[in-house]
Amino acid sequence: MNREKVQIFDTTLRDGEQVPGCKLDTKQKLVIAERLDNMGVDIIEAGFPISSPGDFLSVTEISKVVKNATVCGLTRAVKKDIDVAAEALKLAKKPRIHTGIGTSDSHIIHKLNTTREDIIERAKAAVAHAKSYVEDVEFYAEDAGRTDNAFLAQVCEEVIKSGATVLNIPDTTGYCLPEEYGAKIKYLKENVKGIDNVTISCHCHNDLGMATANSISGAINGARQIECTINGIGERAGNTALEEVVMIFKQHPDLNLYTDIDTKQLNEMSRLVSESMGMMVQPNKAIVGANAFAHSSGIHQDGVIKNRATYEIIDPADVGVNESSIVLTARSGRAALAYRAKKVGYELTKTQLDVVYVEFLKFADMKKEVLDDDIHLIIAASKIEGDLIKR
Amino acid sequence: MNREKVQIFDTTLRDGEQVPGCKLDTKQKLVIAERLDNMGVDIIEAGFPISSPGDFLSVTEISKVVKNATVCGLTRAVKKDIDVAAEALKLAKKPRIHTGIGTSDSHIIHKLNTTREDIIERAKAAVAHAKSYVEDVEFYAEDAGRTDNAFLAQVCEEVIKSGATVLNIPDTTGYCLPEEYGAKIKYLKENVKGIDNVTISCHCHNDLGMATANSISGAINGARQIECTINGIGERAGNTALEEVVMIFKQHPDLNLYTDIDTKQLNEMSRLVSESMGMMVQPNKAIVGANAFAHSSGIHQDGVIKNRATYEIIDPADVGVNESSIVLTARSGRAALAYRAKKVGYELTKTQLDVVYVEFLKFADMKKEVLDDDIHLIIAASKIEGDLIKR
Repeated sequence: MNREKVQIFDTTLRDGEQVPGCKLDTKQKLVIAERLDNMGVDIIEAGFPISSPGDFLSVTEISKVVKNATVCGLTRAVKKDIDVAAEALKLAKKPRIHTGIGTSDSHIIHKLNTTREDIIERAKAAVAHAKSYVEDVEFYAEDAGRTDNAFLAQVCEEVIKSGATVLNIPDTTGYCLPEEYGAKIKYLKENVKGIDNVTISCHCHNDLGMATANSISGAINGARQIECTINGIGERAGNTALEEVVMIFKQHPDLNLYTDIDTKQLNEMSRLVSESMGMMVQPNKAIVGANAFAHSSGIHQDGVIKNRATYEIIDPADVGVNESSIVLTARSGRAALAYRAKKVGYELTKTQLDVVYVEFLKFADMKKEVLDDDIHLIIAASKIEGDLIKR
Repeated sequence: MNREKVQIFDTTLRDGEQVPGCKLDTKQKLVIAERLDNMGVDIIEAGFPISSPGDFLSVTEISKVVKNATVCGLTRAVKKDIDVAAEALKLAKKPRIHTGIGTSDSHIIHKLNTTREDIIERAKAAVAHAKSYVEDVEFYAEDAGRTDNAFLAQVCEEVIKSGATVLNIPDTTGYCLPEEYGAKIKYLKENVKGIDNVTISCHCHNDLGMATANSISGAINGARQIECTINGIGERAGNTALEEVVMIFKQHPDLNLYTDIDTKQLNEMSRLVSESMGMMVQPNKAIVGANAFAHSSGIHQDGVIKNRATYEIIDPADVGVNESSIVLTARSGRAALAYRAKKVGYELTKTQLDVVYVEFLKFADMKKEVLDDDIHLIIAASKIEGDLIKR
C-alpha cells in the first residue's frame, strides 16, 4: 500500500495566538512563520485579517516572507471579511482564504438566529466570493462535531460546487470521541458528491483531552489535512498539538500516512513558541515537555540502561533532544545509581553499591532529586570497605 | 441498558510521585490521600513500599487514614517486595497488593533475560504469595501494550487461576493507538477463561498524547478500572489524567459508564497536587488548566454571550470553577467589549460601541489583555457623541 501524505496546517499564529496572554507582535510572528515554513509545515494560518489592524499587518508581512508554505487568512462568511483577507494575502506565493459558518443547530438557532437554508446560501456565497480572489478556498463548517451528518454532507456538497478545495470539519467545542469523529469523516467520504477531489481537514479542540486522538481518527478515516498548533495552544484547552500528530505518524508506519515535518526541529520550535508567548509547557507534556524523556523510577531506569527500547519508543534525538536522562530520586534503583556514579567517575563493585545505596536512599528521601555533586557526598559518607575505583 | 461503574484507581502518589522533582513527604501524601478518598476515588495506590523507607512509611500512614478507598501497594514479582508491601498495608481497611512482571518480548529478552515459561511461573508464584496476605490482588502485565495478545491471554488466564482479582493491562511505553488498545482489551474479554469474574484495568502512558483516549477505548471494550493521576502527571509524558476520563464519562452518557467521583472537587484537587509537587499545569490543560474555560476570540465570545452552550460543553461549576471568563484581547469583537463594558457600568448604544471599538482595537494591539481599568480609559479616550449612559 502506498503511503499517503497528511498536510500539516499550523494555526499557532491564529487559533493559538487568540488566547489570553498569548498576543505576539508582527516581528515575533514573522520569526515563528519563517521557522514553521522551514520545518516543513504545509499551510500557515497567519491570522484573521479583519479582526484588527495589527492582525492585518501580520498577515501581509507573513505573506511576503514565507517561501514554501501556503499562507492562509481566516474570515467569517461575510463579504467584507473576505475582501480584507484577499487584500492582506495579495503578496503570498500560495494564498488561501479560509471562510465558513456555523452548521450545528446550536449555532444556527442560538448564535445566528436563522435557518439551514440560509446557512447554505451564505456558505455558497462566501466560497464563491473567496474564489473570485484565490484558487485555494477552504471552508469550515463551524461546530461540525455537533452537526447532524446528513445536513453537514449537504453543506459540503454545495460548497464543493461553489469551488471549495478544502473542507474543514471542526470539533469546535472539543466534544467528540475518536470513534464518533472518525465515523463523521467516513460518512462524508461516502456521502458527499465530489469529495474525492477536495481535501478533508480535521480541526479538533482539546476540552476533553481528545484533540490529537480525534485528528488521528479523522486521518485514518480519510482526512488528509490536520489543523494544529505548536504545544497544542489555543482557545480554552487548546487545539491538536502539532508535535503529537507528527510523531504518531512517524512511530506508526502501519497507518501508511506521513507528514513532511522535519521532526528534529520540534523541540526548538516548542521552546520558541513557549518563550515568545510566555505560555509555559508542562513538564509532562507529550513529546516536548521537559520530562518527556526523563526516567526516574528504579524499574524503568534499570530497563533503559539495559536497552533503551524497553521504555522508550521515541529516540529523543528524533525530536531534537540530546539524550534521555536518568534522574536520581528516592524511587531510583541500584542500576541507576551505578550508572550515574560511573558517569561522575566511580566504578562501584556490587558490595560497594549495596553500601552506597543505603546511604543514597537516606539522602534521597530528604531531597527531590539527587545531583552529580550529591553523589560525591553520598559516596564519601558511605563507609566503603576495600578499594574504591575512581577514574 | 444499565449504566456500569468504572472504578477510578488513582496513582498520583505512586506513578505520579516517582517523577523528577515531584517527591512529597509523608505529611503531604496524607493530605492528598485523604482528599482523594473524600473525592470518591475507588483505589489509592499509595506507594512502592520496598523502594525506600520513606515510601514504606507513607503507605503505612495512608493505610491508617483512608476511610473508604482501597489502599494499594506496588511490588515487583518478588517475594521480598510482596512481604514488605503486606506489612505496610496491614492496617488498611481494604488492602490490595499490586504485583506483576514484564510480558513483552522486549522485557522478557532484554530486561529479564529469560523465557515466556519462566515469566508465567514467576507471575503465578507472585500472585499466589500476595494472595496469602490479602484477598484483593492486582496483577500487571508490564508492557502489555507491546505484548503479543495470545501470550498475554495465557498469562492472564494463569494468574486468574492463582487468585488475581484485577488484571492491569499497561501500555507502559505509551505506544498504542486507541483502536489497537481497545482491540487488545476486547481480545482478552473474548479469549481468557474466567475473565468475567475479574476486573480489567487500563494503565496508559501519554508519550504520544493518547493516554486518555486509550483508557476510554479500553473501557468501551470492557475494562472497568482506569489507572490515572491528577493533572496526568507521571513518568516521562505522564499517565492518563483523572479529570479527563471522569469528565468524558460525565459528558457522554451514551457510553453507559459512570464513576463515583465528585467532579466539583476536581479543580481544587488539581491545584493541591500542582502546588504540593511544584509541578505546574499548563494553561491549556483540559478541564483544569487556567484557560480551560476562558473565551477570547470575538467569534467565540459573541456565541458564549448569546448562549453558553454554543462554545462550552462543560459547565465550569461542575468542575469547581466559578465562571467562564470573557477575556478582552485584540481578537475580541464588539459583543465582548459591550459585555465587559456593561459589567463595569457602561450601557453603550450601537453607534457608541462602534466608536469605542476603534479605540479599543488600537489599545488592544499594544497590550496582551484589556482589563476593567483599561475600559474606563478607552471610553474616556473615545470621542463619544450624545449621552453616555453610565450606571
